[in-house]
Amino acid sequence: MSVSVVAPHSKRPAEEDKVFAANRKAQEAAKKVGADQVINSTIGALLEDDGSLSIMQTAMEAFKNLPDAEIAAYAPIAGLPEFLEAAKTAVFRDYRPKGHIRGVATPGGTGGIRHAVWNYMEPGETLLTSDWFWAPYRTIAEEHGRKMTTFTLFDEKKAFNLASFKEKVQELADHQERVLVVLNTPAHNPTGYSLTDEEWQQVLTFLSNVVEHQSKKVILYVDIAYIDFAGDMKTSRGFMKQFENLPQNLLILIGYSMSKAFTFYGLRSGALLCVSSSEEVADEFESTAAFSNRAVWSNGTRGAQRVLAKVYGDPALLEKVEAERAGFSKLMFDRARAFVDEAAEVGLNIFPYRAGFFITIPCENPAKVSEELTKDYLFLLPMAKGLRFAACAVSVEKCRQSARLIKKAIDKVNG
Amino acid sequence: MSVSVVAPHSKRPAEEDKVFAANRKAQEAAKKVGADQVINSTIGALLEDDGSLSIMQTAMEAFKNLPDAEIAAYAPIAGLPEFLEAAKTAVFRDYRPKGHIRGVATPGGTGGIRHAVWNYMEPGETLLTSDWFWAPYRTIAEEHGRKMTTFTLFDEKKAFNLASFKEKVQELADHQERVLVVLNTPAHNPTGYSLTDEEWQQVLTFLSNVVEHQSKKVILYVDIAYIDFAGDMKTSRGFMKQFENLPQNLLILIGYSMSKAFTFYGLRSGALLCVSSSEEVADEFESTAAFSNRAVWSNGTRGAQRVLAKVYGDPALLEKVEAERAGFSKLMFDRARAFVDEAAEVGLNIFPYRAGFFITIPCENPAKVSEELTKDYLFLLPMAKGLRFAACAVSVEKCRQSARLIKKAIDKVNG
Repeated sequence: MSVSVVAPHSKRPAEEDKVFAANRKAQEAAKKVGADQVINSTIGALLEDDGSLSIMQTAMEAFKNLPDAEIAAYAPIAGLPEFLEAAKTAVFRDYRPKGHIRGVATPGGTGGIRHAVWNYMEPGETLLTSDWFWAPYRTIAEEHGRKMTTFTLFDEKKAFNLASFKEKVQELADHQERVLVVLNTPAHNPTGYSLTDEEWQQVLTFLSNVVEHQSKKVILYVDIAYIDFAGDMKTSRGFMKQFENLPQNLLILIGYSMSKAFTFYGLRSGALLCVSSSEEVADEFESTAAFSNRAVWSNGTRGAQRVLAKVYGDPALLEKVEAERAGFSKLMFDRARAFVDEAAEVGLNIFPYRAGFFITIPCENPAKVSEELTKDYLFLLPMAKGLRFAACAVSVEKCRQSARLIKKAIDKVNG
Repeated sequence: MSVSVVAPHSKRPAEEDKVFAANRKAQEAAKKVGADQVINSTIGALLEDDGSLSIMQTAMEAFKNLPDAEIAAYAPIAGLPEFLEAAKTAVFRDYRPKGHIRGVATPGGTGGIRHAVWNYMEPGETLLTSDWFWAPYRTIAEEHGRKMTTFTLFDEKKAFNLASFKEKVQELADHQERVLVVLNTPAHNPTGYSLTDEEWQQVLTFLSNVVEHQSKKVILYVDIAYIDFAGDMKTSRGFMKQFENLPQNLLILIGYSMSKAFTFYGLRSGALLCVSSSEEVADEFESTAAFSNRAVWSNGTRGAQRVLAKVYGDPALLEKVEAERAGFSKLMFDRARAFVDEAAEVGLNIFPYRAGFFITIPCENPAKVSEELTKDYLFLLPMAKGLRFAACAVSVEKCRQSARLIKKAIDKVNG
């Protein structure tokens, strides 16, 4: 007889994370045939051409040079006040919207989404994101007894599919008092798409209409995990000025992470911010999120918080950090361009890439294509309707090679 | 009209954490009259006599000397395998029970309790802990839509109140399929009590009986946050051998934290372990907890995990860590003894202190007594039925002085 102690809602399959599993296979192949022969395009971290992790030396030095107590001591539950101020600066820069902005520290980007899913949805309700999405969105929803549905990200012209977005928001608003929408932009994971300022305007106009004329509450969660690899300040943050003067029942949440921006993946530090035209709604966010912090992970990684505060409190240090990051961005951009150009050259159909770590290739039978590619020692992430190529992890030369190999494999599998 | 966007279950009062609030008042007083004149007994961290944080230099050096990538890179979702092995060694040492032991990384002690409350309780159910308890237990239960009730920790002889424990477990078992019991031992926060081996035997015999004869499931969560300040190996861990050969519906969960043991409070690293006689139950624990990790905070602080792995992989380093920790333990013990001795001297009634960071003084009108004590610049944590004195944060001399001041204040307030 089967034995079980866990509560029924928490029975989970013993399943290896898909990214880690794909990465493991790539590493096994590298041991067998040599790393040179293997293209490991699985992991969402910026790697050097030799496959080692790119590490922002300015940030790591600032961290290691902290007084011991700044690493060892507890941070306040909501985060160091100087960190929360620095996070606001890091997020908005020259495009800070007017309004009531509050923040709490979270462990990377994941924690903020957890708080939004738990606090701004009722049990059994459904959140909305695009049909190309970061898989943990679904995991977070499932863990907390919520559901997830998707709109079609691109229309037939490969532009943002506003019609699908509107239709799906409306469907949810017909049945729920609150609608949580998660948009991963700029530099969307996995497609590299960024909403344009015009698309942002259309999105916000429509959502304002939903909350004003239908007495609904919309929570728009903007996941900006890749914002510091999304182009210049205007391109990456210009849309944020549109977050001011929105209706009070349209709440903007912004998930910021130090993981990519400071290569602090393993230090678990991010922030969840809100922007609201209502002080009451902002206060409510703050007390709710701080309570959740206390009840889920307590406080955050103090040393990482202190580094962000130092960087934004010291113009010379900020300049150094940004110079180093510009080098990383160029590395990233050169790789992505090599892939995109070669894809055009060989006629490989890809989604519009603007910026970020990933490029997506829509195709039939992605699992089979991915399996076929392992014969050429190319490892990437098969998704429901295509392949995610992590250009962040692969040299320029291998990026070019990959576009050709993927085209060949798709042609072979799908004939 | 009041505006609200958050879901009804997540409306939370804007409330300052009681410990942080008391600490803030103490610091304000120190600025006014000088730190010498102030006794700040609020914070649950080991401090030097001058009020600075005690930092384990061996551990901090091991951390800062890690290769950058060991700090910067992501850890696996469940934790580095070497960390999880090290955590098992750190927890059990010479008293490892036979059975199926699994683990996942958590951010400090809080995260493990969150997983237990969420995964081993159904919505609306009630967990059980002692009437003297760490306040976040209740916060964690409330956040997740669960309730909490308490048994009376001490009987009239100030011994473990087994009768009350049994009665309360039975009450819950009468209405719930699962009963989650949280015991904070050894070195209980806030009383400093540790269950004896005999008391452990009685507890486990009773719980085994509940699961076997009443077809219930009992999850016994042992919070060992203070175990490395709880006396020698036998005293602190001898009871763990009793976790073997328990019925398969009696699941032992153990919450381990590096916060106190390595003075890594601000690095957020701990582990949740299970001990089960059933491989199936242990497997179920592992996949459920790993899923929860992915869905709540993703992975843990890699550098801290690597330090634990290094310490338990290097006997010379372990010896150094333990020598340094022995110094901290002596500091702690001398302070607690000073308070306990002086309490006996002046006739101050306290709960039996065995080990750990705190001593508890039961009294009427704790808020008033605490307020009275601020006139003498003594700051501590008023609880529902007494005062928590953090001997970890106060010099030997001030510990003696505190016992006298508390006695005086209680006599004045309660006549």
